[in-house]
Amino acid sequence: MSERPTVGIAGLGRMGLPIARNVLTAGFPTRVWNRTTEKANDLLDLGAQLAATPREVAASSEIVLSSLADPAAVEAVYFGPDGMLAGVGARTILADMSTVSPSLSRRIAAAAAERGASFLDAPVAGSIKAAGEGQLGIMAGGEREAFDRCADVFAAIGKAAFYLGPSGSGVTMKLVSNAVLATMVQALAEGVALGKKAGLDPVDIFAVLGASSAAAPVVAAKAVTVSEQAYLPAAFTLSLMQKDLWLILSLANELLVPMPATAVAHDMVLAASATGKSAFDFSAVAQLMQELSGGRD
Amino acid sequence: MSERPTVGIAGLGRMGLPIARNVLTAGFPTRVWNRTTEKANDLLDLGAQLAATPREVAASSEIVLSSLADPAAVEAVYFGPDGMLAGVGARTILADMSTVSPSLSRRIAAAAAERGASFLDAPVAGSIKAAGEGQLGIMAGGEREAFDRCADVFAAIGKAAFYLGPSGSGVTMKLVSNAVLATMVQALAEGVALGKKAGLDPVDIFAVLGASSAAAPVVAAKAVTVSEQAYLPAAFTLSLMQKDLWLILSLANELLVPMPATAVAHDMVLAASATGKSAFDFSAVAQLMQELSGGRD
Amino acid sequence: MSERPTVGIAGLGRMGLPIARNVLTAGFPTRVWNRTTEKANDLLDLGAQLAATPREVAASSEIVLSSLADPAAVEAVYFGPDGMLAGVGARTILADMSTVSPSLSRRIAAAAAERGASFLDAPVAGSIKAAGEGQLGIMAGGEREAFDRCADVFAAIGKAAFYLGPSGSGVTMKLVSNAVLATMVQALAEGVALGKKAGLDPVDIFAVLGASSAAAPVVAAKAVTVSEQAYLPAAFTLSLMQKDLWLILSLANELLVPMPATAVAHDMVLAASATGKSAFDFSAVAQLMQELSGGRD
Amino acid sequence: MSERPTVGIAGLGRMGLPIARNVLTAGFPTRVWNRTTEKANDLLDLGAQLAATPREVAASSEIVLSSLADPAAVEAVYFGPDGMLAGVGARTILADMSTVSPSLSRRIAAAAAERGASFLDAPVAGSIKAAGEGQLGIMAGGEREAFDRCADVFAAIGKAAFYLGPSGSGVTMKLVSNAVLATMVQALAEGVALGKKAGLDPVDIFAVLGASSAAAPVVAAKAVTVSEQAYLPAAFTLSLMQKDLWLILSLANELLVPMPATAVAHDMVLAASATGKSAFDFSAVAQLMQELSGGRD
Repeated sequence: MSERPTVGIAGLGRMGLPIARNVLTAGFPTRVWNRTTEKANDLLDLGAQLAATPREVAASSEIVLSSLADPAAVEAVYFGPDGMLAGVGARTILADMSTVSPSLSRRIAAAAAERGASFLDAPVAGSIKAAGEGQLGIMAGGEREAFDRCADVFAAIGKAAFYLGPSGSGVTMKLVSNAVLATMVQALAEGVALGKKAGLDPVDIFAVLGASSAAAPVVAAKAVTVSEQAYLPAAFTLSLMQKDLWLILSLANELLVPMPATAVAHDMVLAASATGKSAFDFSAVAQLMQELSGGRD
Repeated sequence: MSERPTVGIAGLGRMGLPIARNVLTAGFPTRVWNRTTEKANDLLDLGAQLAATPREVAASSEIVLSSLADPAAVEAVYFGPDGMLAGVGARTILADMSTVSPSLSRRIAAAAAERGASFLDAPVAGSIKAAGEGQLGIMAGGEREAFDRCADVFAAIGKAAFYLGPSGSGVTMKLVSNAVLATMVQALAEGVALGKKAGLDPVDIFAVLGASSAAAPVVAAKAVTVSEQAYLPAAFTLSLMQKDLWLILSLANELLVPMPATAVAHDMVLAASATGKSAFDFSAVAQLMQELSGGRD
Repeated sequence: MSERPTVGIAGLGRMGLPIARNVLTAGFPTRVWNRTTEKANDLLDLGAQLAATPREVAASSEIVLSSLADPAAVEAVYFGPDGMLAGVGARTILADMSTVSPSLSRRIAAAAAERGASFLDAPVAGSIKAAGEGQLGIMAGGEREAFDRCADVFAAIGKAAFYLGPSGSGVTMKLVSNAVLATMVQALAEGVALGKKAGLDPVDIFAVLGASSAAAPVVAAKAVTVSEQAYLPAAFTLSLMQKDLWLILSLANELLVPMPATAVAHDMVLAASATGKSAFDFSAVAQLMQELSGGRD
Repeated sequence: MSERPTVGIAGLGRMGLPIARNVLTAGFPTRVWNRTTEKANDLLDLGAQLAATPREVAASSEIVLSSLADPAAVEAVYFGPDGMLAGVGARTILADMSTVSPSLSRRIAAAAAERGASFLDAPVAGSIKAAGEGQLGIMAGGEREAFDRCADVFAAIGKAAFYLGPSGSGVTMKLVSNAVLATMVQALAEGVALGKKAGLDPVDIFAVLGASSAAAPVVAAKAVTVSEQAYLPAAFTLSLMQKDLWLILSLANELLVPMPATAVAHDMVLAASATGKSAFDFSAVAQLMQELSGGRD
């Protein structure tokens, strides 16, 4: 039986930390790096080793998972002077779990390939809770062989890993998925506003929708939040959804794909953010639509 | 006394016929009426009795379910000279399962009340297959007592019956539900168009969405239809969805409820219909969105 | 030289009254009818004669202009027991200046034709001020010969009369014109909201737009209204524009014409109305868009 | 002292060349630079002097006007090693007439200020014909004093120059103006599609609109183009409008300003481009809307 590869984790934020814990618990030798080191303490107690820089984590691992806040952080951690690309060897696989544009993913992949290494764009779907339980969905793009070599690591952190094609396919799928999700929730927001103004009880609306062919998990997940207009704490904030919608619409603009309902959903996210709801759960577009139909609550 | 009430069925179309069969099979004495009588033959063999007019079916039943093609048919069957309202007695319950406007429902309810009878708007959700299997969802508005008296009949034809409030609440909920459904499918159509133009395989897109929080039953139901662009035969045609969307937007206009994503979804249904797809399944907006992004397929 | 025909005016509201005055001033023998007779007093002093019913005004005039509040009033005044159609002779021309649906216009035209009379749908563009100055624009549908026979009457009340084709063409053109106008004003509202939030002075925005290829008369007309957010008194209320937009979208739904920007403009009119602006000038969508972008003033 | 300042022109494209000719004709000593020098030949014959690099044109001029193809060209010509910023002196005024993002404008302004020079964002409105006739509209942002010092130069090339506020205000106003224009033309496209399918003649539609409060110059300018569906040659292509709409929506996203009608207009521009019309005049959205309503023409 082959020895377990050393796995590096770059970025120990809200997603990175539970991912690192699951990797460690699954028995992989683990190297971690974070911008601020105190986040790593618990992991070190469990046997992880600390790397001083992204470069060092890449140099000392066979597979590196990164989970970073935004494209600027991804740029810095990969391309910076002590960045991951400076540390990779010929067999290193870098897998970035952040949601960035396909073009940035392809740029990192090209840079990795120049150094003989492999890069997977591998964003995840799922909440922080799902991350903790190793129940993420992983959407991966890049070389098939690199994806296959990550199978055990992905199994440690997720319930399903999808190989979707060449570099950029993973983040593209993530953007498609969030486009559908955000517009679905806008659909829900409009339906609830109509039903409520027509005299229906939101609890009833969610009960019926929950038994209908529109019964997506997100409908059940937001039933209480929307019925009680309690959008804090947020599972996923409006401002994060705005960021993702902008990546989606940017890709659509670039590829000449009209997405009018998605564009309108984005506009309602902007309006909700501009009127004070940016830190609310992204389902707070339901509150906006009720305000816009003259409802008080 | 627990004797089963006589149940009338007015309208033996694609939904009415399987509904009548389930009522009969459940042991209710059954009276049926249809514009053309040959549709009733199988039911008569099973023990149903034929009524010559809607008036007669109402006069000889305690509970009458109607399932009719459109608002014009509902008007005629209820208000016509030999219509149901002319036949009702003081204890009769009329329940219309068609999708019409809340204002028409309330008009029938008022006319029924004048005659001492009760009217429920009770549209259903579910396919013809679901109707056959007694698995419809029933959304009812009207008097609570009338709804309760229908419990056994509804149990014979559906998996769940929701009491939603006063007259009009049932059709309002049906419109809310179809608004959400149609806009969800537009969301899906846009996501698939984006993913496909970006190089993803639609089969993969549906696989990932099917494991995501957007995994509504409609997503699974349309996966093959959309991936293979095979929109015939239709489960529910674009022109029927157009009719429902128009009822939805009419209600929204009347109540001053802005529904911009739903309005855009309606526009794409119009465009799909105008470009030759009106008899296709309503998910054929996915074909339109691919055409509009320059795809051939 | 041929004698001037007797002209009837049915409806002496905000548009009908100045129209009647201009007809009278131009030297036509004039018969007037209004639901409440006091509105006619000034006209009677100037030589008009009062008719007791729409039927009487039609029976005693060669050309009858009607200007009525809404489709229900048009139905009543034309089809009622003492309605205009009951009074027409073989050479009578009825011209309705109200904004109604093309199908209602065609229904009246058919009823008129059965009686040997002619009907023109002839809605007008222009403010009450323009009506007073005889500067309306007239958009007419019906028989060309009937239109030609009205030339002198139309010249008395308008600056331009357009013959647009068979029955219904006039109101169709009016709807097209208002669709463009309403969506233009939504465009303006969005542009001003963007410019203002980016730090521009609305006065400057209007100055630049007024010198640009977007410099429609409506841009100049609304410059002060929008810059100073002073939407009362209304030149044309949001609720009247909502009514017209609904006729527009109904026609588009019937003919299968997707109008997504117009639909969105309608939704913003609904939102503005639902949030307390229904009596404001229709340019108050500019206030809505500023509120939705987080602006205070 | 009233000596005329030396004026530099960087970029001799479709707009830059006629601008340079008007500056020269007005009597200003003129230095020109273009990426390819043959474009300058006519100007040299008229007395202009050639500069070898943007740096040289900046070093030898008091006022420099740049007119460049896109933001990448602006970046290169300003920030490149032989770029304009490398050549400026303490009194130099740089004025960029290209349409770029406000943030790029402000970045250039800050870089100019570090060197003691001034930068104006000064995009223009108007066709190539208007440029040739010195009839452009100039929208300027930056320091008021720098704007005032450019008065004579702006008078040589335009009919009106608007000072709109601090750096970025000029391009912001240009984006606002194009947002309104693009959405107006979408409004027009929808109105024409509706009218045409309802049986109206597009020539009549434009005649009526041309006498209405929607009669913007763009309506008259596109009457023949749209009525005859003759979108080539383009006055302004769909792909250039797409570029500007993207800058507009990017600014709206950044500032949290919902622009749903503008977003829908952008989507229709994408659809028109994706279906083969990207080189057509931007009014070709009218062709798209007719195709989407089932029209052939």
